[in-house]
Amino acid sequence: MVIVGAGFGGIRAARQLADAPADVLVIDRANHHLFRPLLYQVATAGLGPESIAIPIRELLQSQQQNAEAMLDEVCGGDPERKVLHTSSGKEIDYDYLVLATGGMPNLFGNDHWREHLFHLGNLRAAMALREHIVACYEAAAYEEDEEARRALLTFVVIGGGPTGVELAGALAELGRSVMPQDTKRIDPGDIRVVLVEMADRVLTPFSEKLSVSAQTVLERLGVEVKLGKPVTDVDGVGVVIGEEGRLLSRTVCWASGVKPVPLGKALGLPTDRSGAIEVAPDLSVPGHPDVFALGDGSTYVPPGSDEPLPGLAPVAIQMGEHVGKTIARALEGRGRRDFAYFDKGMLATIGRSRAVLQRGGFQMAGFTAWVIWCVVHVWYLAGFRNRLKVVLDWIWNYVKFRPGARVLTLEAGDGFGEPEAARSARRSRPALPLPVKESDRDAA
Amino acid sequence: MVIVGAGFGGIRAARQLADAPADVLVIDRANHHLFRPLLYQVATAGLGPESIAIPIRELLQSQQQNAEAMLDEVCGGDPERKVLHTSSGKEIDYDYLVLATGGMPNLFGNDHWREHLFHLGNLRAAMALREHIVACYEAAAYEEDEEARRALLTFVVIGGGPTGVELAGALAELGRSVMPQDTKRIDPGDIRVVLVEMADRVLTPFSEKLSVSAQTVLERLGVEVKLGKPVTDVDGVGVVIGEEGRLLSRTVCWASGVKPVPLGKALGLPTDRSGAIEVAPDLSVPGHPDVFALGDGSTYVPPGSDEPLPGLAPVAIQMGEHVGKTIARALEGRGRRDFAYFDKGMLATIGRSRAVLQRGGFQMAGFTAWVIWCVVHVWYLAGFRNRLKVVLDWIWNYVKFRPGARVLTLEAGDGFGEPEAARSARRSRPALPLPVKESDRDAA
Repeated sequence: MVIVGAGFGGIRAARQLADAPADVLVIDRANHHLFRPLLYQVATAGLGPESIAIPIRELLQSQQQNAEAMLDEVCGGDPERKVLHTSSGKEIDYDYLVLATGGMPNLFGNDHWREHLFHLGNLRAAMALREHIVACYEAAAYEEDEEARRALLTFVVIGGGPTGVELAGALAELGRSVMPQDTKRIDPGDIRVVLVEMADRVLTPFSEKLSVSAQTVLERLGVEVKLGKPVTDVDGVGVVIGEEGRLLSRTVCWASGVKPVPLGKALGLPTDRSGAIEVAPDLSVPGHPDVFALGDGSTYVPPGSDEPLPGLAPVAIQMGEHVGKTIARALEGRGRRDFAYFDKGMLATIGRSRAVLQRGGFQMAGFTAWVIWCVVHVWYLAGFRNRLKVVLDWIWNYVKFRPGARVLTLEAGDGFGEPEAARSARRSRPALPLPVKESDRDAA
Repeated sequence: MVIVGAGFGGIRAARQLADAPADVLVIDRANHHLFRPLLYQVATAGLGPESIAIPIRELLQSQQQNAEAMLDEVCGGDPERKVLHTSSGKEIDYDYLVLATGGMPNLFGNDHWREHLFHLGNLRAAMALREHIVACYEAAAYEEDEEARRALLTFVVIGGGPTGVELAGALAELGRSVMPQDTKRIDPGDIRVVLVEMADRVLTPFSEKLSVSAQTVLERLGVEVKLGKPVTDVDGVGVVIGEEGRLLSRTVCWASGVKPVPLGKALGLPTDRSGAIEVAPDLSVPGHPDVFALGDGSTYVPPGSDEPLPGLAPVAIQMGEHVGKTIARALEGRGRRDFAYFDKGMLATIGRSRAVLQRGGFQMAGFTAWVIWCVVHVWYLAGFRNRLKVVLDWIWNYVKFRPGARVLTLEAGDGFGEPEAARSARRSRPALPLPVKESDRDAA
């Protein structure tokens, strides 16, 4: 039994198989399960990277005895022969396969923007953004050229969904409340955070009332919200926003589209136009009853609905639980059931004490929603230690307004201590210069 | 007033000037003050990088109103004209100058080894080592070639001083006690940690009795201690240890010599053969009463002694305090005093519950010394929050034997989210493609 992807869905599927007579292999490109909803706080120095990630091995070991992790990338395979291929050249057999590979940024055809964009795709990218933000403030403190200084202090977020709103709010608070404590050389009035959204309101998945509420809070924090504006270009100098023209910025963050990781196509499975794997009501792939897909990498239109389920964590979690149970039942010779999604609602936070909440017809905005947001996020975070760390950091940041993670590790220096080995160990077959003579070997 | 270097000495010198009628500028290549004695725990996943570093701005702001930080590297200057030059092209005037630039790894002429060595020079290098260690275990879990697997599981530490002993002990515990909890695919017996020391005992600054005690503990932890053995080569395959021949290893760590950062020579100041700045009894540089040097970058032979003071944190701290006080007194028109070092003793820890302590004639080894080691290290750590984090992490690691920082951020991926901007913001004059047309500018 192979699970590809250790996100919300993959980990839940594995857990359901804890007592099943099966060997579960979880393959992921990272060695950790990442709590993505808090990634923007890592990028804005509120949390350390270790607080929202847990080694997959530790997570599996804490929940079950029959699972192993593999750090690798599945790049293809043959569902007929029931085999997968990995980037490092391994061939892996499976009886059941769960594809929980998630999504990746969608630039809508503008792939040449990639080299100029920050995003919140993984821990490394979030840390690169954090270091970059801190470096921009450090450079701005002594930059004498007015234009260059403004570009260093202008932060652009493209996309007004929950991620974009949360990131923009955190960037604004960092700029207005935290950084000025560090130096008198930066005028907080020079710091600009711009949120660009093509639709005519932010948080489109939420009700219009909550959108307006969120926008008001953002603007109170100092975020410039530009609605109904397409970004027409991104380059090394900044962005071009529709007819408004060029906005000079050293920090342009992509928080817009997500598309499925294109593994479905590589495996020859049925996909929709975006590349998402189509699944039957039991979440298996039509024509491949032993292959399941779930989460952002899949597309499932529930009976009686016109729209596929959204790319949300609760969807992936519930799908993972369903798939795990289905396989466990199949191993006992029992039949399959259809997946039914229970809508747990949506949450988004804006700044450090406001959030919006929507669940069915119920909606709510303000401080209480923010408290609920905090509780829900800590609840779903994996690992007691990480929960403790996040809560302590939040209390500290709330009281002191001084996030601790403003440390720049990209120290000027000569790179000593980062040998080629640091980059090559990840190759599963290390590039040892062979042959090594017998007489040359460890004589000890 | 300019202080170059925000290590133990530089920060203490700044603090003494808190109430002085002076503007204090602290220039450092990093944006953080680093608690170097615990760096080996970051490298071995025991602590997160944020726990032992604090932004220089935050540290200064918490202790005084008259100080600013600058993220830059001093590369030269002219003590006659009282001016410094930085890597980013700035020219900085000073009235008083404190050189607290510290040391850098000394490869004793084997500079071609650099590209193959890990070391504990700064936060980034420590994190590179941590990621590499975790990656080696991940790769070893699925490596089928016996020789390649052994190389992945062999960790070599060159240098048996306190840093080397502490690192080797931590590597051994990681290998024997922590990693096997994560996977059944690695036999703890296959993991080798080798400590190579040219002298005939480890911890040469300590007494022979303590050296023997430390070695016994190391060997009990599973470290192979090779004494009186020179390392004659380091390459991408491993190390060559004297006549023992080649030892295949993917992880070779340098914990041997330290030499001064060569700024003294660049400024035309009197230096000894190693490049350390010679100082008078008041710690000023002979011929330059307004220039002071301290810590690892200086050399001072106390009256009545044959040897210069050792490169220890307490020496740098006391020198920093003396220099700060001297300048504060000078600003009040008061005279100078000679520096007198008060020997606070030496400590080194071996593994998670043993340490050695020596102070004057008094010496001690074992659990009590380790408790003292813990207390002293937390005491000297800057910032209440960092102290709290370290103590909580230590308790957790001690009880659970599962350090939390085994997260690999070097995720396989396409590098999206690390634009060129991430690397170039550090240049103080950002490389904006100019000229930007007036009409092209931010129209908002």
